[in-house]
Amino acid sequence: MAAWARAVRGLLLDVSGVLYDSGGDGGVPIAGSVEAVRRIKASGLKLRFCTNETQATREKFVKKLQGMGFDISVAEVTAPAPAACLILKERSLRPHLLVHNDLVPEFAEIDKANPNCVVIGDAAENFTYANLNEAFRVLIGMEKPVLISLGRGRYYKETDGLKLDVGAYMKALEYACDVQAEVVGKPAKMFFESALAEMGVPPQQAIMIGDDIVNDVGGAQRCGMRALQVRTGKYRPCDENHPHVKPDAYVNNLAEAVDIILQQL
Amino acid sequence: MAAWARAVRGLLLDVSGVLYDSGGDGGVPIAGSVEAVRRIKASGLKLRFCTNETQATREKFVKKLQGMGFDISVAEVTAPAPAACLILKERSLRPHLLVHNDLVPEFAEIDKANPNCVVIGDAAENFTYANLNEAFRVLIGMEKPVLISLGRGRYYKETDGLKLDVGAYMKALEYACDVQAEVVGKPAKMFFESALAEMGVPPQQAIMIGDDIVNDVGGAQRCGMRALQVRTGKYRPCDENHPHVKPDAYVNNLAEAVDIILQQL
Repeated sequence: MAAWARAVRGLLLDVSGVLYDSGGDGGVPIAGSVEAVRRIKASGLKLRFCTNETQATREKFVKKLQGMGFDISVAEVTAPAPAACLILKERSLRPHLLVHNDLVPEFAEIDKANPNCVVIGDAAENFTYANLNEAFRVLIGMEKPVLISLGRGRYYKETDGLKLDVGAYMKALEYACDVQAEVVGKPAKMFFESALAEMGVPPQQAIMIGDDIVNDVGGAQRCGMRALQVRTGKYRPCDENHPHVKPDAYVNNLAEAVDIILQQL
Repeated sequence: MAAWARAVRGLLLDVSGVLYDSGGDGGVPIAGSVEAVRRIKASGLKLRFCTNETQATREKFVKKLQGMGFDISVAEVTAPAPAACLILKERSLRPHLLVHNDLVPEFAEIDKANPNCVVIGDAAENFTYANLNEAFRVLIGMEKPVLISLGRGRYYKETDGLKLDVGAYMKALEYACDVQAEVVGKPAKMFFESALAEMGVPPQQAIMIGDDIVNDVGGAQRCGMRALQVRTGKYRPCDENHPHVKPDAYVNNLAEAVDIILQQL
């Protein structure tokens, strides 16, 4: 019946909006998701958490999820900040950081003196007028501005409402400096490919499950994966009329997706 | 010699970066500009101040300029907020305002209950994370979001450095909500045309003088005016290699432009 669920060897799960709804200092698990992760692991399917989370180090992020009951470890998480650190080292880039305070430790070993690029993440409360002007001045002062963005999400949902995501602020700086940001994180192809490599599963045998029609679903499909949109998190009914992206299936939540996938094994 | 200066009947002057450099609570006149305005008026040329200033009511703005010695009155100023109020009234739009506190009185007579659009201006310190999220939520909550932007400038210079202008924040909201803002102010054609109409001068007999290569020079030229870029304010040497816009002439400052224009009368 569910052709999209056949011949699966690995699952990539978005985290916020799929496992839990974030908000303030904590978050609330989405009904059935804790159990769904356990069932995936018991099934023998390969599993990787593929997040654009940049409000905390992976350590802190994983600890929060464990506190909600999720079976998850740091080694199972693909996140933008470590991917960005690799790029910075490779290209001898010294970043000015416009990121969340709690993400700064991920850049501990990176030289940040005399910056020659700007790295922007979901800085949340750090997206102040002063900090945005400062990042802008660093960029506009470069002969050829280099802007690296940890994701390009438009917005996300916290328990107290929708919030602008890093992509909006990335666009502001892109426009002001007339540059195009290099995006690390979903929907960048390289980011999905590194997650697949870490699982050891080819894209044709992997399914991405996310709440973001563009960054999760569209990005994964462009890598040759199948992709589902859950009707939780930032999902909105109008996503089902998206002009460019059509998921392989919609599911009400992660638990329903896992039900169907496990039935086909 | 200066063919661009012939057959002129009216001048449109940008204000910030042409008459003065703004900063903090006040600003500093640009050398020669106070006298240049006096000389234009004495010459019999028509004159209009065409500004995207949205950090203050026209009354307050003009008072500040008078305090610096400029011969200027409210009736001589074309500014975005009054132009936006006309549009709001015509289309029965009730704005949620994301503007500078000092601009709010310009909207005193506009119904703002139960908003059905967002008006964004250069809100400066009001560009907080909370205020941006709030404006975003108002927009994303509409079936068809309406975003009206008072200008689309990328940045401007104050005495303490470059600052992101309204255009950057407009782009952030455009991207997050997948809408295109309606721009009131330079470089909108209607805005220049209303300034010309107020002077009673056709575009072929008018010269715009500004420091912004795109919004002043490019915008005015698209209306059939000649346009000069001054090498003051936000001017940067790389503007002279702009891929799309070529001013009719560069001048070091307003005083030099007025010297040349008055010689040709």
